[in-house]
Amino acid sequence: MIRWENLDKLGSYKKLQELAKVDLAVEMSGENGAERVKSFSVPMAGGLVFNYAAKAVNKEVLEALADLAGEAQLVEKYRELYNGAMINTGEKRHVLHQLTRGQLGGDVIADGVNKREFYVREQEKIAAFAKKVHDGEITNAAGETFTTVVQIGIGGSDLGPRAMYIALENWAKRNGFFKMEAKFISNVDPDDAAAVLDSINVSRALFILVSKSGTTLETLTNEAFVKEALRKRGLDPSKHMLAVTSETSPLASSSDYLAAFFMDDHIGGRYSSTSAVGGAMLSLCFGPDIFARFLAGAAAEDKLSDETDFYKNPELIDAMIGVYERNVLGMEATAVLPYSQALSRFPAHLQQADMESNGKSVNRFGEPVDYKTGPVLFGEPGTNGQHSFYQLLHQGKDIVPLQFIGFKNSQMGTDTLIQGTTSQQKLCANVAAQIVAFACGKDDENPNKRFDGGRPSSIIIGEELNPEALGALLAHFENKIMFQGFAWNLNSFDQEGVQLGKVLAKKVLAHDTDGALKGYSDLLGI
Amino acid sequence: MIRWENLDKLGSYKKLQELAKVDLAVEMSGENGAERVKSFSVPMAGGLVFNYAAKAVNKEVLEALADLAGEAQLVEKYRELYNGAMINTGEKRHVLHQLTRGQLGGDVIADGVNKREFYVREQEKIAAFAKKVHDGEITNAAGETFTTVVQIGIGGSDLGPRAMYIALENWAKRNGFFKMEAKFISNVDPDDAAAVLDSINVSRALFILVSKSGTTLETLTNEAFVKEALRKRGLDPSKHMLAVTSETSPLASSSDYLAAFFMDDHIGGRYSSTSAVGGAMLSLCFGPDIFARFLAGAAAEDKLSDETDFYKNPELIDAMIGVYERNVLGMEATAVLPYSQALSRFPAHLQQADMESNGKSVNRFGEPVDYKTGPVLFGEPGTNGQHSFYQLLHQGKDIVPLQFIGFKNSQMGTDTLIQGTTSQQKLCANVAAQIVAFACGKDDENPNKRFDGGRPSSIIIGEELNPEALGALLAHFENKIMFQGFAWNLNSFDQEGVQLGKVLAKKVLAHDTDGALKGYSDLLGI
Repeated sequence: MIRWENLDKLGSYKKLQELAKVDLAVEMSGENGAERVKSFSVPMAGGLVFNYAAKAVNKEVLEALADLAGEAQLVEKYRELYNGAMINTGEKRHVLHQLTRGQLGGDVIADGVNKREFYVREQEKIAAFAKKVHDGEITNAAGETFTTVVQIGIGGSDLGPRAMYIALENWAKRNGFFKMEAKFISNVDPDDAAAVLDSINVSRALFILVSKSGTTLETLTNEAFVKEALRKRGLDPSKHMLAVTSETSPLASSSDYLAAFFMDDHIGGRYSSTSAVGGAMLSLCFGPDIFARFLAGAAAEDKLSDETDFYKNPELIDAMIGVYERNVLGMEATAVLPYSQALSRFPAHLQQADMESNGKSVNRFGEPVDYKTGPVLFGEPGTNGQHSFYQLLHQGKDIVPLQFIGFKNSQMGTDTLIQGTTSQQKLCANVAAQIVAFACGKDDENPNKRFDGGRPSSIIIGEELNPEALGALLAHFENKIMFQGFAWNLNSFDQEGVQLGKVLAKKVLAHDTDGALKGYSDLLGI
Repeated sequence: MIRWENLDKLGSYKKLQELAKVDLAVEMSGENGAERVKSFSVPMAGGLVFNYAAKAVNKEVLEALADLAGEAQLVEKYRELYNGAMINTGEKRHVLHQLTRGQLGGDVIADGVNKREFYVREQEKIAAFAKKVHDGEITNAAGETFTTVVQIGIGGSDLGPRAMYIALENWAKRNGFFKMEAKFISNVDPDDAAAVLDSINVSRALFILVSKSGTTLETLTNEAFVKEALRKRGLDPSKHMLAVTSETSPLASSSDYLAAFFMDDHIGGRYSSTSAVGGAMLSLCFGPDIFARFLAGAAAEDKLSDETDFYKNPELIDAMIGVYERNVLGMEATAVLPYSQALSRFPAHLQQADMESNGKSVNRFGEPVDYKTGPVLFGEPGTNGQHSFYQLLHQGKDIVPLQFIGFKNSQMGTDTLIQGTTSQQKLCANVAAQIVAFACGKDDENPNKRFDGGRPSSIIIGEELNPEALGALLAHFENKIMFQGFAWNLNSFDQEGVQLGKVLAKKVLAHDTDGALKGYSDLLGI
């Protein structure tokens, strides 16, 4: 029987609070540190490893976190979710993004259909369409092949697919899988669409309009913007545009599109990269086989999240240490620091995935909670960040927990020996050095050059950032967020906090304003 | 007489703490809200206005902040700085980035030269060089004009110039000032350089190597990487490379470069966009006249920062409200939210400028401080962010102060009427709506749809993002950071926190490791 209880009602949470705190700098020095690096480690899918040696935990704390995960029934709740319970209670929806990449539990029937079959059918439709585009069966009116894909979407229809595309672009080029380049139009700022249209050969571009509801203001505006640009060039928009939407949306049956591919209400925007939202774009750019490998990586990680042995479940460990840092150690914010240029926009995607899911103050029953929930999340790739905001991370007044990501090999394989080492070796040396610098610190006579240490981090290490590793990485963070949402007793799958702004923006555009709203509208010349 | 005292030693700070807190939702409703929007506003340079109506302040709090600014001698300290005092005490350096764009005070003589004359001379050298490139007097070996500029630098040599380039790229294209495209290589990840080289016509590219010391690991590595690529294509690197460095660096007198332009030790990397570091790249891309207009905007804002009347000094107001939020109201983090796609990387630049300057725990005398200093800073452009992390900003457990930026007009002027309004109007309507939604909130029977409000923001509004406005915007934040650093009694101009990681990375590369450092090195295959 599943119990949905607030974190601070759980006995194991109270026990956790009473445990002695760990002195990370001490724990990580000498042979004890080396031993931790070896043992505080758990394999992931896609050839990845999650290592949490440099987190402010020891065996006692980990045991208490395992107890908490058990008492909060985190894995059982995951099973409820993937077996089709109505986990998104507020919106009365299932939560099925894991089902887009594999059958974890029993059949899920919703809207009268077997949902796994539905997602697979859409993947097959996309694969068949992409093949025709690649083979030159579907071309522009002049019979030329399409060379560019432009994704028109915002939020989850943009950030995830964009991050995944950038993550695999160079890998695909090097390995002979690169078929079409991708561009993205998201902002309602007209300069965004105008700049993208200026940068491509519009006559050879396919535009993917992505909106679950078919009513997103920015996306419909940009669609109209693009259609106008196509017509001005004497092109027929219906021969250049695809739709990714829900079957019930106004876009679904429109003859305005070359094809329509479907997602549904049970896939949250920020969890849609493995659905048709990411699938259409990634299949066109890299081929359906690469998209399938990406899904396989995610599905394999989803299976690991199902592990009831706390120490074998990377997502559960990561999630619970995060709860410990936030609620017991009182740390604010989290930084995601990939030592891989290909992951340059991965933190921006996680920023949405995490902050939109768990940035909430009421529990799943609408009652205010008395503990901190999701933190601010930010990040940039290393080594770049080292020359930017790491000063605060090392010596600032607040301790910010860190999530490093690193790969032994580069994607492109072009490298050069300088001062006896390759760039890739320098990159890896830097991430190793940072973890130890943050954890252990360094004393100095000059207090300005002193590092207190005790700044916790974990690292995910892989051989190479390829489709499987990327899928595993994505699923890791998605499932970590899910487990944390369960621990905080939140509904992680709605986003009521984005509504008020939309309502007020409509009022401004209708000139239905007074007071401060009128004041700002006047200042902005609307 | 200047007194350098900790914030918590100041009488006006204690008074500030005792003042009644403002109920922002109440203050911003009805006609009082409209009145605040009109009166809590101060003109900036470049046609901008700084509006702080939606900050959690009232007349009493503002008066106390003005007193605090006075007691902390913030403007006097600024005058010391621009008149050449050794403000960066730890490194025994002047702080002269304001001098790169204008003569605010007396002559500053350092290293035996008049520094203003030195900066102007470098600007003139750059302008002359850029003109020769644009006129085809300087070409590649085949006599073809150069079409691309590649900036090779990291941290301040990358983030600021990159943000400024992106900010003006489309404006320059529309207004006929666009001369060369820019690309950037920063990360030691070899995939960064490889991908940039793959994306350009290398034979028609000029590479600007930017390193003040001439010893930055990433930059020298990438220089070698690029030189190898040039040679492989049969090109002579010395005909394709420029250096921007200090006169004392190993790069300064090298015959490896077509030309060398100089900055000096008195320009911090994160404050170098208006020096040769930004100047060479921006002058080549848009022409020296555009760079001069950018400098003029910054210089005009620098003058406003010199205003002793608190209510006429936009940087002082912004800085002191930030101190109030951080130290009295106990708010963590700050988000910068430009409603302009052209400012997409401006938050990343401010992230360095702010967090590297004020992310510190000891005062300028090396003594630990007992109050919070610089916050975590992050941001993405709106409206994109609205569909991402705004959920947490509206309904999360932590209140994050917000800095909006908006412009009445787009840069490219391509727009389209949809549902009776342009995209630019929709963009502006959204930022107006967000400010009021955050400040006033909205009650609802369903607690999940309830917005408490009381979430403070300010906005900088301009007519159009052009070179003058961009210069003013940059100087605003630079000077805000400076004033906050003075208030916290920090040295905002060193960055000792980045050193330890460098030292340990060298050890890893030399295989001089044990304990945890050896453990991580092994895991990463070094």
